[in-house]
Amino acid sequence: MKDYHFSATLPQDARNIIEKILKEYLSLKTETISVYKAHGKFAAKDYLSLNTSPPTDVAAMDGYAINAEQTFNTTDANPAIIENFKVVQTGESIEGFDAVVPFEEAQVENGRIKIFQSYYPRQNVRSKGEDVQKEQLLIKKGDLLTIFDKVYLKAGGYLEVEVYKMPKVAFLPTGEELVDIVEKEGQLVEFNSVIFNDLLQRYGFEVGIFKPVENNLKKLTEKIKELLQEFDIVFVNAGSSKGDKDLTVEAISALGEVLVHGIAIKPGKPTIIGKVENKLVIGLPGFPVSMFFVLREIFLRPFFKTYNLNPKEKSIFATLERRLSSDIGSEEYVRVSIKNIDGKNVAKVLKRGASVISSLKRADGYVTVPINVDLIEEGSLIEVKLI
Amino acid sequence: MKDYHFSATLPQDARNIIEKILKEYLSLKTETISVYKAHGKFAAKDYLSLNTSPPTDVAAMDGYAINAEQTFNTTDANPAIIENFKVVQTGESIEGFDAVVPFEEAQVENGRIKIFQSYYPRQNVRSKGEDVQKEQLLIKKGDLLTIFDKVYLKAGGYLEVEVYKMPKVAFLPTGEELVDIVEKEGQLVEFNSVIFNDLLQRYGFEVGIFKPVENNLKKLTEKIKELLQEFDIVFVNAGSSKGDKDLTVEAISALGEVLVHGIAIKPGKPTIIGKVENKLVIGLPGFPVSMFFVLREIFLRPFFKTYNLNPKEKSIFATLERRLSSDIGSEEYVRVSIKNIDGKNVAKVLKRGASVISSLKRADGYVTVPINVDLIEEGSLIEVKLI
Repeated sequence: MKDYHFSATLPQDARNIIEKILKEYLSLKTETISVYKAHGKFAAKDYLSLNTSPPTDVAAMDGYAINAEQTFNTTDANPAIIENFKVVQTGESIEGFDAVVPFEEAQVENGRIKIFQSYYPRQNVRSKGEDVQKEQLLIKKGDLLTIFDKVYLKAGGYLEVEVYKMPKVAFLPTGEELVDIVEKEGQLVEFNSVIFNDLLQRYGFEVGIFKPVENNLKKLTEKIKELLQEFDIVFVNAGSSKGDKDLTVEAISALGEVLVHGIAIKPGKPTIIGKVENKLVIGLPGFPVSMFFVLREIFLRPFFKTYNLNPKEKSIFATLERRLSSDIGSEEYVRVSIKNIDGKNVAKVLKRGASVISSLKRADGYVTVPINVDLIEEGSLIEVKLI
Repeated sequence: MKDYHFSATLPQDARNIIEKILKEYLSLKTETISVYKAHGKFAAKDYLSLNTSPPTDVAAMDGYAINAEQTFNTTDANPAIIENFKVVQTGESIEGFDAVVPFEEAQVENGRIKIFQSYYPRQNVRSKGEDVQKEQLLIKKGDLLTIFDKVYLKAGGYLEVEVYKMPKVAFLPTGEELVDIVEKEGQLVEFNSVIFNDLLQRYGFEVGIFKPVENNLKKLTEKIKELLQEFDIVFVNAGSSKGDKDLTVEAISALGEVLVHGIAIKPGKPTIIGKVENKLVIGLPGFPVSMFFVLREIFLRPFFKTYNLNPKEKSIFATLERRLSSDIGSEEYVRVSIKNIDGKNVAKVLKRGASVISSLKRADGYVTVPINVDLIEEGSLIEVKLI
C-alpha cells in the first residue's frame, strides 16, 4: 500500500510557482478587434480620448436657447417676454446663449416667447466635455472591458481596440467511469468541463474540452504530450489526489517535473502543479467545488498578476450570521448566500462539502478564511467575493 | 412653428401595447444547441433529470470504507483495530459499509487498520442523489440558463438543450452629424449602438447595427422598410421627440401606424411605438441613459412577459442616503451607487441627467420611483435593480 500522507504547499507558494513559470515561458500576444466585440477582453494598452464630447456647450433638450439673466425674478404672475432666442434641437450648439427653455415651458407670441419661471445659467445645457475630455484616460492597460468601457472607447474615437489574446487551455478528464450519457451502472456524467469552460471563457481563454481518457498511465501520458503540442496550458481532472488510481502525478513525472502536489487550501488540497517542456500542466481535484476554487484562487489569481490584468472582480461586505470555524493550516473558501435583513447584508454559510454542485448554485459568493485563523465570530463584518 | 406639447402614454399602457403586438404577430422559434453553448439562452421546455447523481452512496474521499459502529468510543488512547474494511477511491460505491476513514487518519498494520477517533455513520460519504435525483426538475421552461444550470443539465443527462431562438433586431441611428470617427466640427460619435448591442445580445437577440441614415424623410422611410424585410423588430435612434428634425414619427406613419408617441417615464419620455406590417418599429430617445431605460423597462419587460421568460434579474435592498424627490406623473428611473456603511447597503443617488454616460458606468443599479410618488424619505429601505 502507498503512503497516503502528504504535506501541502502553502497557497501563496503555489501561486508564486505558477507566476514564475508564466513570467518566464508564456507571453501574451495581442490582437486588434472591433469595439463591439471587446466584451470580456483585457485591454492591451492605455487608451486616451481622441475627442471631446460634447464638443461644445449644447442643448440638453429641444427648446429655445436664451440668456438666463433675462428670466431672473420671472414668475407665473410676471412672465418674461424674450426676443433674443434661438430654436435648438437636442445636442445642437447654444453658442451665444447660456440656457435652454424646453418647448413645452414657453408660449410663442408674435415671434417672441413668453415664459413663466426663472432659469439659471447652464440650465438644460450639456457642458463641453461632460462625457469625455480629449486626452482623458478612457481605459487602462490590463482592464477587463465592460459594456460602458466599450461605450467610452467608441465615444472617445476608437472603432477598434487592441486586446490580449488569451492562452489556449485544454481540459482533459480522466477515468473510464466518466461518460457523457450514463448507460450502465458505475458510470458517472462528466460535468466538471462545463464549469471549467465557463469560468475560463468568461475571461477570453480559448478552451478545448476533451473526451475522458481511461485510467491507464501510458494513455494518459501520451494524451498530455499530444495536448501540449497545441495548447499553452493543460489541465487534467482528476486523479490528482493520492488514491491508487491517481496517475496524474506519474504521468507528469514521466514527461517533466511535478513542482507541487497538495496545497494547503480547503477545498482543493489535492492539486498538482507540474511543468513539462516549459509549459504548465495542472492537476485539478475531482470535486466540482474544489476545482472551481483552485481555478479561481490558485490559477487565475497569479495569472492575472503575472500580466497585470484587472478582472474587476466584485466583493461586498456582509455581517456573518453565525460563528464560522475553520481548520488552522488551510486557507479555506466558504460559500455563503447573502440575505437582506433590516437593510443589512447578512452572510449565511452554506453546506461545505466539496462535492455538492447545488451549493455553488445557491451561493452568492465566498469568504476566504486565512490559513492562520480558526474562528470568525458571529456578527463580524467580512468580505464576500461575489461569484 | 409646431406644437411641441404632447401628452404621454402611461408606462403600463405602453408595455401592454408591445405585449399585444408581440403575442399576436411574433412567435419564438426554438433551436437545439450544445449545453456548453447555452449560456445566456432561455430554455424552451422543462428539463427533468434522467440520472440520479451520485447513483449510490459513495466515498467522499479516498480512504477505507468501514462500519462506523466499530469506532464508537474510540480515542487516541483507545484505538480501534478494524479487519472488515475496503479501500475506496473518491466516488466509489461503499456498499456494505457506512462511513469512510481518510487514508491519512489510519495506520495500516498487518492487513488491519488502526484508527484513533470515532466516526459517525455517513461520515465522508456522499448520499445517493445528493446532487441530482432522477425526475427532479432541473430547469424550468423560460429560465435564462446560467453556468450552474448548465452543470445541472449535463449532470442530469443532457448534452443538448432546446432554447428559444431570439428575434432579429435592427438598430438604425439617424442624423448626418453622427459618425464613427469625428473628422470635422459639428460631428458626433454614434455610440448608442454599443449599448443597444450589448443589452440585447446579453439575452441572445440577433443584433444588426446599421450606419446612420441622414435626416431625410424619404431616405429614413425607405431604410426602415428595407430593414423590415430582414428583421423582426426595428429600432430607430433618435428623432423620436418633437423637434423640427425629428422624422421618425412621420416615417412610421407613412409606412404603418404610430401607436404611442411619448411615455410618462423619466428619462425616456420621447419614445415611439409603431406598427408596420405587423412588426414593431420602436423610436428610441437619443440620450444613451434614456435609451438604456426604455430598452430595459419598456421593451424588454413586456417582451419577457409575453413569452414567459425569466431573465433572473437581480435586485437588492438598500437604505436611501438622502431624500429623493421625483415628479408626480412620471415613472422615474434613478441611478444609484451602493456603498457599504457599517454593514449596511446605502444607496447614493447619482447625477440624473439623461445625457451622461459616466453616470451609467458608475451606477450599480437603479430605483424605480412609481408614477404617483413624489418623495422617498431619507433612510427608506428601497429596492435597487442591479445593472
